[in-house]
Amino acid sequence: MSGGVRTTERAVVLLSGGLDSSTALAMARAEGRECHCLTVRYGQRHDRELEAARRVAEHLGAAGHLVVGVDLAAIGGSALTADIDVPKDRPAAQGSSIPVTYVPARNTVLLSVALAWAEVLPALEIWLGVSAVDYSGYPDCRPEFVAAFQALADVATRGAVERGERVVVRAPLIDLSKAETISRGLALGLDYGLTHTCYDPAPDGAACGRCDSCRLRLKGFAELGVRDPARYLA
Amino acid sequence: MSGGVRTTERAVVLLSGGLDSSTALAMARAEGRECHCLTVRYGQRHDRELEAARRVAEHLGAAGHLVVGVDLAAIGGSALTADIDVPKDRPAAQGSSIPVTYVPARNTVLLSVALAWAEVLPALEIWLGVSAVDYSGYPDCRPEFVAAFQALADVATRGAVERGERVVVRAPLIDLSKAETISRGLALGLDYGLTHTCYDPAPDGAACGRCDSCRLRLKGFAELGVRDPARYLA
Repeated sequence: MSGGVRTTERAVVLLSGGLDSSTALAMARAEGRECHCLTVRYGQRHDRELEAARRVAEHLGAAGHLVVGVDLAAIGGSALTADIDVPKDRPAAQGSSIPVTYVPARNTVLLSVALAWAEVLPALEIWLGVSAVDYSGYPDCRPEFVAAFQALADVATRGAVERGERVVVRAPLIDLSKAETISRGLALGLDYGLTHTCYDPAPDGAACGRCDSCRLRLKGFAELGVRDPARYLA
Repeated sequence: MSGGVRTTERAVVLLSGGLDSSTALAMARAEGRECHCLTVRYGQRHDRELEAARRVAEHLGAAGHLVVGVDLAAIGGSALTADIDVPKDRPAAQGSSIPVTYVPARNTVLLSVALAWAEVLPALEIWLGVSAVDYSGYPDCRPEFVAAFQALADVATRGAVERGERVVVRAPLIDLSKAETISRGLALGLDYGLTHTCYDPAPDGAACGRCDSCRLRLKGFAELGVRDPARYLA
């Protein structure tokens, strides 16, 4: 509804404030998208990432930033939303086991809310920073999940029924290692010091360096030989 | 996790407190399901239906009732969530046009939250009271929408990945007219006086009798030759 920009150039970008979604935002901006960032406050224990999302959206010139509350803590079932300890120093290779930091149906919920906002703006793209490489084995970070949500979006909206319009889900990191993701972001001028990755930060915001999320991030920076600007517990 | 009931007998039932979802709950109970009712407070102007949901869940012997907040009013775009008038006395046949009471991606969001709860309980069914007969033309009430969500659920959960388990979406009203739905509910002992249907009730809770939702309900009761126990504006 804002004038001048065709809906094909407008995108909803799911932005948690973490490394991956911030990089996806940088890539969407680099493709010239007018980016409307969506952060979902779902009861995550690391709600410090909400402030990181605000900083990153401003840093990368987003057109808007909306925070929407979804009370997944009422449902629980995850170390991120219930009183369950976040695992530390977990062995890297645990086969196909999905850790307790998995939040049931979280990405399904996030994409659903993004689809709602895309219909209203309107926007014809949703950008999502999931990766199926260097990840925690979550079912809703896999290419088949993204494809299934695309097929759902294709029949779920008013635009699809009335005008045959598609809201396209873009997952530009799906095949990238963490190092490759960081490399793309650095090339696009993203300041990773603004992002927040840790599942279980200290009260002063320092990252633990030991949860799955921190360890994947640190491994990515180490592979690149670049210093991670995030602040870690000593 | 509650003892004694196999997960195949446990179901999440999306319950708005309206006629359709209440009937779906009655049908799930008649099939012997242990029903965990989920009501989503999404900023609907007719939030009186939340109280109706509580009454109906109790009336039909639900095992539990959870109300989860999802702030779709922050997104708006519908007469049910934003400052847009609810249409009254709309001509019945308006081709394929979708009215302003459509809430963008609402059923996608509702099913997503239900899927999250089904994973946590765990339950292997989600019941949804949508109908593609005597309805308002909403894209997310059609059989192809339900089928697409099923395909998404089949790849989205921990159970699907780790154990090949399916959470099955049941939409038992999808092919029923409103009169047929009411007839089923009455046969199962559902007291429709407890349900709330109107999109735009008076402050004292009386139904307007003129919005799409009231008119479909009234038409259903009229076809059956049964008095609607709901209270309408004189």
